[in-house]
Amino acid sequence: MAGAAPAATASDPATAAADGDTLRATAAALFGTIPERVEELRGKPLSAEQVELGHMLFFDPRLSRSHLITCNTCHSVGTGGADNVPTSIGHGWQRGPRNSPTVLNAVFNGAQFWDGRAADLAEQAKGPVQASVEMNSTPELVERTLRSIPEYVERFGRAFPGEAEPVNFDNMALALEAFEATLVTPGSRFDRWVLGEDDALDATERRGLELFVSSGCASCHNGRNFGGQAYFPFGVIERPGAEILPPGDKGRFEVTATASDEYVFRAAPLRNVELTAPYFHSGQVWDLEQAVAIMGSAQLGREIDDDEARAIAAFLRTLTGRQPRVEYPVLPPSTADTPRPE
Amino acid sequence: MAGAAPAATASDPATAAADGDTLRATAAALFGTIPERVEELRGKPLSAEQVELGHMLFFDPRLSRSHLITCNTCHSVGTGGADNVPTSIGHGWQRGPRNSPTVLNAVFNGAQFWDGRAADLAEQAKGPVQASVEMNSTPELVERTLRSIPEYVERFGRAFPGEAEPVNFDNMALALEAFEATLVTPGSRFDRWVLGEDDALDATERRGLELFVSSGCASCHNGRNFGGQAYFPFGVIERPGAEILPPGDKGRFEVTATASDEYVFRAAPLRNVELTAPYFHSGQVWDLEQAVAIMGSAQLGREIDDDEARAIAAFLRTLTGRQPRVEYPVLPPSTADTPRPE
Repeated sequence: MAGAAPAATASDPATAAADGDTLRATAAALFGTIPERVEELRGKPLSAEQVELGHMLFFDPRLSRSHLITCNTCHSVGTGGADNVPTSIGHGWQRGPRNSPTVLNAVFNGAQFWDGRAADLAEQAKGPVQASVEMNSTPELVERTLRSIPEYVERFGRAFPGEAEPVNFDNMALALEAFEATLVTPGSRFDRWVLGEDDALDATERRGLELFVSSGCASCHNGRNFGGQAYFPFGVIERPGAEILPPGDKGRFEVTATASDEYVFRAAPLRNVELTAPYFHSGQVWDLEQAVAIMGSAQLGREIDDDEARAIAAFLRTLTGRQPRVEYPVLPPSTADTPRPE
Repeated sequence: MAGAAPAATASDPATAAADGDTLRATAAALFGTIPERVEELRGKPLSAEQVELGHMLFFDPRLSRSHLITCNTCHSVGTGGADNVPTSIGHGWQRGPRNSPTVLNAVFNGAQFWDGRAADLAEQAKGPVQASVEMNSTPELVERTLRSIPEYVERFGRAFPGEAEPVNFDNMALALEAFEATLVTPGSRFDRWVLGEDDALDATERRGLELFVSSGCASCHNGRNFGGQAYFPFGVIERPGAEILPPGDKGRFEVTATASDEYVFRAAPLRNVELTAPYFHSGQVWDLEQAVAIMGSAQLGREIDDDEARAIAAFLRTLTGRQPRVEYPVLPPSTADTPRPE
């Protein structure tokens, strides 16, 4: 580190390092890093029994009516926590309305879903299980299923001790949330650079970071998830075309019924964005550089040229962290009482 | 062991033990055990690089045209190596014609598929990738996809060294086969009993084994997989109803076009059968005891009563081995050249 370097010209490496220190301090303040692990949720220590149970539920197709779709189908831990298709395919091959957001680091978002309609991951988990175009189940069907499987009854009992009827839909959601809280991606090159590893970013990537901050991207995409904290109109300056911003999806307006929330969405968290194409809630843009350029015109009223877009995208690719290592859980078999797939 | 026990009456524990030894010797000769691991395929040592590559491909949805379906979708390592629905659902939510056979221990089968139309797992692997009702891809599309992803290019090169164009459909199949050869389930209670652990089976389970042999089940369901080696007409004595044996599916006849092969199927391998309901190629029977009784009337011309069916089913449940521990692979991202999902 060059903090104590002597006076030098602008092109001098020592000054560049000092500038690097300023940029680093800015980055640390605006964004922060991903911790090695999440220790608690809503002020309570993460329960190992809930994590283990949630791990099984996350991969259990019997949460879906068809017994074919799991949480991992649309939020695959093998592909950046998402499904990498424009919008998800669910029950009966129905296409859902929006692109699947990544589950990785989702625990750090201020709210869940593109429109923030769920306060936390437990509330979120109940959505897709019931959505007719996703898993198409019901709380009653899920409970009947889980109660028919002795190992689940036993595990819910241990994960939620002292409860009279621990096998219930709310606890399913809490267990899923607990597991999902383990799906964090520390150790990205950006984080290592913020923590002092000078060589973790090259010159282009540092320039991309600088542009990301100076152009205004960081006004919405901030916090340790580079987004996921607050809501903004898509097209604050210039509304993108209908393919990218379909007029039928009014975003947060559908949650709040407030006119000013028309076409308002949660700023997408950008951690691991390299792994989660295609982009935007409509999933219509596959190229990260193009997504950056669209954001420039739509949100900042600023033409980001090719060279700048390349630098910003190069920087964004440094946000890819260590992907979680997840074992495929061995699931307990169904019994004669388990509702059959439909 | 009671081999040197003095003369005793039939109900004497010593004689029972001696009978146990006879049964054990019979079982060892007829069936055998599942090894801890498979060391070679077709006389060549299993390649660690191929196994690792196959592990990724097994979970890669980009082998399917939709980018939604993986090998694991229908052969889930979390649910006994199968999908636990009557017949598999594939591209566009089309329902396939037959129940998904388990991938676990499939390397020990004499041939693959219900009709044995693939000689080995490599040949098998090419089927579902191309089947329009399954993954609906083509060799050309798969190759274009894999060649667009630098990490795959590098891994195929290492897995198939010295080849001019290692990224090809045949090698995809060989890598999948290599991974699948690791999906074996040693250590079942039956195996432990065969290997000398007297308490691994209780009296009912041993009676079930005795009935399995004496009733003739073992005439078709033999070898270490309890089946999977040879072909037999379904309904050799009495043809089951159309629900269980749909008249449109003539089994091996569709492979050989030989009249005597009408309604002929490969004897289902019974390892982990407790985990792979529903049963038969039509997947129409959920209850193991009922499946046993149907086999009695259809194949043996013998009414297996409820008590016998329970004992045989209890024995079959001792064939559940240690399920493989498989990590969910972290897959390399697509590039601009990767064909998009359709």
